[in-house]
Amino acid sequence: MYPESIHNLIESFKLLPGIGERTAERLAFCILEMDYDNVKFFSDNIKNIQKLIHKCQSCNNLTESEICNICSDSYRDKKILCVVEDVKSIYLFEKMGMFKGMYHVLDGLISPLDGINPEDIGLGKLFNRVKNEKYQEIIFAFKPSVEGETTALYIKKMLDDTKIKITRLASGVPMGADIEYIDSLTLERALNDRKEVE
Amino acid sequence: MYPESIHNLIESFKLLPGIGERTAERLAFCILEMDYDNVKFFSDNIKNIQKLIHKCQSCNNLTESEICNICSDSYRDKKILCVVEDVKSIYLFEKMGMFKGMYHVLDGLISPLDGINPEDIGLGKLFNRVKNEKYQEIIFAFKPSVEGETTALYIKKMLDDTKIKITRLASGVPMGADIEYIDSLTLERALNDRKEVE
Repeated sequence: MYPESIHNLIESFKLLPGIGERTAERLAFCILEMDYDNVKFFSDNIKNIQKLIHKCQSCNNLTESEICNICSDSYRDKKILCVVEDVKSIYLFEKMGMFKGMYHVLDGLISPLDGINPEDIGLGKLFNRVKNEKYQEIIFAFKPSVEGETTALYIKKMLDDTKIKITRLASGVPMGADIEYIDSLTLERALNDRKEVE
Repeated sequence: MYPESIHNLIESFKLLPGIGERTAERLAFCILEMDYDNVKFFSDNIKNIQKLIHKCQSCNNLTESEICNICSDSYRDKKILCVVEDVKSIYLFEKMGMFKGMYHVLDGLISPLDGINPEDIGLGKLFNRVKNEKYQEIIFAFKPSVEGETTALYIKKMLDDTKIKITRLASGVPMGADIEYIDSLTLERALNDRKEVE
């Protein structure tokens, strides 16, 4: 029904998650009406991104250089390492802006049910780094889930002979949440992790 | 915070309507993880679409040739012309599949309040076409609105000296709609346009 090039553009947009037929049609028509400079900017960015971006050799963050801008930032605290399950977590932390230590990105979390074992998430690189650097604290910032717990416990066990303090993010009732809508697992964790009012 | 190329890709996605910061970030990360063949397909389609697609010389439909595939289809009924306000309407009609006549696409609708006057919507091309072809009926398929009515009345007046039958889409209660949620303007129109039960 559509000319081939419009059909192809619609199919392209449908490759993206959460974009169905109707939205893809709407977006394709927008591209048709867009400024050519913007169209070229868009197209070039898509085409070049995979060539320009790769993993930081030290921490697996995404970067255009060999070492990412966090690893090469001399103002950051090299004594504290936050281990995250994917790159997006780094950007969440950086947006929050309170954490000034280093990061290490794993290739996901251990999940035996999905066939993801400890050797699949790039722990060797993490252990090498821990051996070579002098960290005082390692923070696990995984999602609170069976996979997150398993991964945290496994790494902790492997680092048992070091004297590094190992912590995880507090788990509990999110700010602004209504207690009546909190699931019981979260509530249980919030109760166990309760803090003295100061 | 993001490497420049990721930042640029996020900004590119934000050029599209209905795509905000969070969605743009999500889509940009998807592109990073996509198959390179798909990335190239996507990027090329965006880049080439404006070069490949232009208006049909006869009806203003979008096409890769001089004349669109509807105008050049000898099986269609050349005696009936459906005038629409934009190209998307053609695809709606074609999806429905019942209409086998020709189309003519205007550059929008007359809307004096927005500074869009009769001379701004490309009526000359329509009138020329009507003069040269032998239409028996012209259907206005504009959205039911002040602009739609104005445009329909203006064109009808300009074609008053021809003997062509001029019609508009029926307006009324949409199929499956609950009468109690219909606005009173639609209900008024549905009452005025009531049809004898056969």
